[in-house]
Amino acid sequence: MTQYFTEDNSVEAVNTRIGPQADARLATIMASLVKHLHAFAKEVELTQAEWEVGIDFLTRTGQICSGERQEFILLSDTLGLSMLVDAINNRRPEGATENTVFGPFHVDGAPVRQMGDTISLDGKGEPCRYSGHVRNLDGKPIEGARIDVWCDNADGFYDVQQPGIQPKWNNRGVFVTGADGTYDFIGIKPVSYPIPDDGPVGKMLAALGRHPYRPAHMHYLVTAPGYQKLVTHTFVGGDPYLESDTVFGVKKSLVAPFVRTPDSDIAWQSTFDFVLVREG
Amino acid sequence: MTQYFTEDNSVEAVNTRIGPQADARLATIMASLVKHLHAFAKEVELTQAEWEVGIDFLTRTGQICSGERQEFILLSDTLGLSMLVDAINNRRPEGATENTVFGPFHVDGAPVRQMGDTISLDGKGEPCRYSGHVRNLDGKPIEGARIDVWCDNADGFYDVQQPGIQPKWNNRGVFVTGADGTYDFIGIKPVSYPIPDDGPVGKMLAALGRHPYRPAHMHYLVTAPGYQKLVTHTFVGGDPYLESDTVFGVKKSLVAPFVRTPDSDIAWQSTFDFVLVREG
Repeated sequence: MTQYFTEDNSVEAVNTRIGPQADARLATIMASLVKHLHAFAKEVELTQAEWEVGIDFLTRTGQICSGERQEFILLSDTLGLSMLVDAINNRRPEGATENTVFGPFHVDGAPVRQMGDTISLDGKGEPCRYSGHVRNLDGKPIEGARIDVWCDNADGFYDVQQPGIQPKWNNRGVFVTGADGTYDFIGIKPVSYPIPDDGPVGKMLAALGRHPYRPAHMHYLVTAPGYQKLVTHTFVGGDPYLESDTVFGVKKSLVAPFVRTPDSDIAWQSTFDFVLVREG
Repeated sequence: MTQYFTEDNSVEAVNTRIGPQADARLATIMASLVKHLHAFAKEVELTQAEWEVGIDFLTRTGQICSGERQEFILLSDTLGLSMLVDAINNRRPEGATENTVFGPFHVDGAPVRQMGDTISLDGKGEPCRYSGHVRNLDGKPIEGARIDVWCDNADGFYDVQQPGIQPKWNNRGVFVTGADGTYDFIGIKPVSYPIPDDGPVGKMLAALGRHPYRPAHMHYLVTAPGYQKLVTHTFVGGDPYLESDTVFGVKKSLVAPFVRTPDSDIAWQSTFDFVLVREG
């Protein structure tokens, strides 16, 4: 039966075109995308001029992308889509450490360091001792857990954003737990920073009355044989952007204490335990 | 009250960030977009790997855009969004000629020709006489209606796609009605053609088991003082792609008769009346 496109049947008119040779999962995703995209246009009764603004925005977002910049990820992040996908794919039982977004600044191959070593190589920032345990849901220590950590420097930049300015591997390192499952290293208290906001996404945030800042955080990628990968941050308690992270990465359970230690030459102490979930 | 992002409250967490200084219409559009985007991701439980495919697709779509190519419009067209926006913004009373998509190939400033003139300048294709009336909803002829027409040549290309190959203004012209509201010109019977399908959108269509063709059509932009602008096509009845236009532009009322005229050196005749709606 012929079914020409109308405002009423628009979704069906498009989705019935998907052929039997299409991959079933792709067909499911595209049919859902069309359904929700059309529902959006109908709900707001999008005008022709607004549609043109949208086409132009997406075009500029694509054109500013380069090897060093991914504006569509920024768009996904600032619309909460990245965190939503992370949440959908990392549902965990009560008591397990929660995931948050990976972010664009992880680098494979950071040096493996000894417990107690420092990761801060540029001499900037307020020193902070990070320590705690890696455990499973039964509270037992996990031996051989690999803790890959990274954060910005005191100026708010990751080393890869400032090649030639910051030392290589500044504020990065990998630590491996022993039989007691403890970890312990020196870094700095990270600082809050804006995501790159000189492109289309920054303009969008400004037009929506939103700031581009992320609250200060330390990144962790924790892996151990037989356990689910944990991608998370700890956030500096008391940061002014904790309740308005522009990429929505904050979870209550990830806000960590950062305590002043007046009797030590390490000005701050942050203790946090990671609880991993077995695979399968 | 602090509201950290969760899978359940994701839409509210994002949309409560919109500031009071945001333009009200922009706030409405973005809040609706976030709601439907999140509903999509939740419905299909989008995986991290699928999200990455999507980011890469959008990036490539943006990067192939240039002064001569607009891949995001092709994407909008092939997902039915362009036709939906056209439908939402051009609801008309029964009896009025329906709108369809404008397309990317109109050029301002085509020569004004006399009734009966030909628009085909390259000597290719099967000649066709186009004629009919421009009327209002009361059936009265409209004097001074401007009929701007354009179509592809017999090889399936618009003149602007083949500069230096086709004569300038090939298969284009403007005709102005007299007191009787009639029009009459010679062109060719247009042919079906594929949209540009060597980019990300073409790959998407192939993956969905869809072809990239549009059924043969003549474009019309009809304007008259005091009447709503009409942007439409007439489609060649019997075209094999009528029921599967890759941009969903076909409406039943726009399928026109193309009749052989064996006793004439003009091989085909197509008669179609345009009915305009008063402004306001």
